[in-house]
Amino acid sequence: MKSGQPSVSLSALKKKIEELGYHLPQPPRPVAAYLPAIRQDGQIFVSGQLPFQSGKLMMTGAMTPEADIEAARQAMAYCFLNGLAAAVALCGADKVRGVLRLGAYVASESSFTDQHLVANGASELAVLLFTESGQHVRSAVGVPSLPLNSTVELDMIFTC
Amino acid sequence: MKSGQPSVSLSALKKKIEELGYHLPQPPRPVAAYLPAIRQDGQIFVSGQLPFQSGKLMMTGAMTPEADIEAARQAMAYCFLNGLAAAVALCGADKVRGVLRLGAYVASESSFTDQHLVANGASELAVLLFTESGQHVRSAVGVPSLPLNSTVELDMIFTC
Amino acid sequence: MKSGQPSVSLSALKKKIEELGYHLPQPPRPVAAYLPAIRQDGQIFVSGQLPFQSGKLMMTGAMTPEADIEAARQAMAYCFLNGLAAAVALCGADKVRGVLRLGAYVASESSFTDQHLVANGASELAVLLFTESGQHVRSAVGVPSLPLNSTVELDMIFTC
Repeated sequence: MKSGQPSVSLSALKKKIEELGYHLPQPPRPVAAYLPAIRQDGQIFVSGQLPFQSGKLMMTGAMTPEADIEAARQAMAYCFLNGLAAAVALCGADKVRGVLRLGAYVASESSFTDQHLVANGASELAVLLFTESGQHVRSAVGVPSLPLNSTVELDMIFTC
Repeated sequence: MKSGQPSVSLSALKKKIEELGYHLPQPPRPVAAYLPAIRQDGQIFVSGQLPFQSGKLMMTGAMTPEADIEAARQAMAYCFLNGLAAAVALCGADKVRGVLRLGAYVASESSFTDQHLVANGASELAVLLFTESGQHVRSAVGVPSLPLNSTVELDMIFTC
Repeated sequence: MKSGQPSVSLSALKKKIEELGYHLPQPPRPVAAYLPAIRQDGQIFVSGQLPFQSGKLMMTGAMTPEADIEAARQAMAYCFLNGLAAAVALCGADKVRGVLRLGAYVASESSFTDQHLVANGASELAVLLFTESGQHVRSAVGVPSLPLNSTVELDMIFTC
């Protein structure tokens, strides 16, 4: 059973994120037919997030063995931050206690088989931000393409 | 927390679906090794549904930039209706209170990047049928192929 | 609501698995940034498992219409056993009561459309081991590629 870490204020969370070289983005805006996040029975389900930074996709196109894994890892980290922003906007920073599950999708040519390394960009950030409560289960898979030609997409379940 | 909408009878649900130009299909038949739907702690988990209409797949093959998005949207709507039929068969129409999560898979050539538009076929129907309680989180991704060469597959979690 | 089957000891579970011609593997070792399994509110979430047997992947590369479906089914069965081993290591064999959901990913060329037959390798084993409580919901989809070039990946939710 995940017990969650002690409550963290919004300013403390933002500071922690900035110390890691990132910033907490504006929460993704609600889309007509679905929601960025829903709280249900102690869990916060978050919609699949794309690596938007200041309104622009950080990386597009499918990964190949020659593609830049570090850039894809960073893009996956921003998917996580966008999802975290959605969870914080819904519940408040002090209610987001930890991370339960990540689902990582990596646009991939069939010759690219390092989806797990790309997904680590989100997994490692989750643990840096939430320490023990940030440890989670995860699936990482390739896909031929994603909405708007994004290289990565990440869905999440936080605990609250 | 999703509170759910007031109870709806089976006949009222069927009427609402018909007013939208659809009909509630026969529930998908149980398959040997897995179930169409399972109720667990206030949630109804539904297996990945294909766009069967009267026993036939509505659309097969991978999407390309030239493919018919409206047809794929309709196919995704039928995946949703088949999943709803499974949930109703398990619990009764009055117990299906809303939609928590959709997972939309769209068979795609790598050049097709409008999976979100295809997934809207299910998301918009969810909201038309369940209004506020139909709003949900969602992931939409491309896949190279699906069982029986279906163009779309949709899994769902309803609230009950 | 899934009620779960009567408790089973570790030795009884191992015997049942061996009678089916398999064995319960060593649990997958914890990976730095994520966990093999987490228990949360009566459910055990398990990370996506690859078909490791004695430290080696049983099958690599994408399925084609000519590929060996029986080998892929066996690989999917081992994904299930690895996930079961993770759940047992976390909670004990007597606490794993049944199977709620399987997510099956099959590396596929676009011409391969029998992902459901491959996924049956896990689904049928779940039911053989847990009888009625092993019946679950499931999604089965194709993917272009998976971590380490594995042919299959499976994530799971057990009930406890």
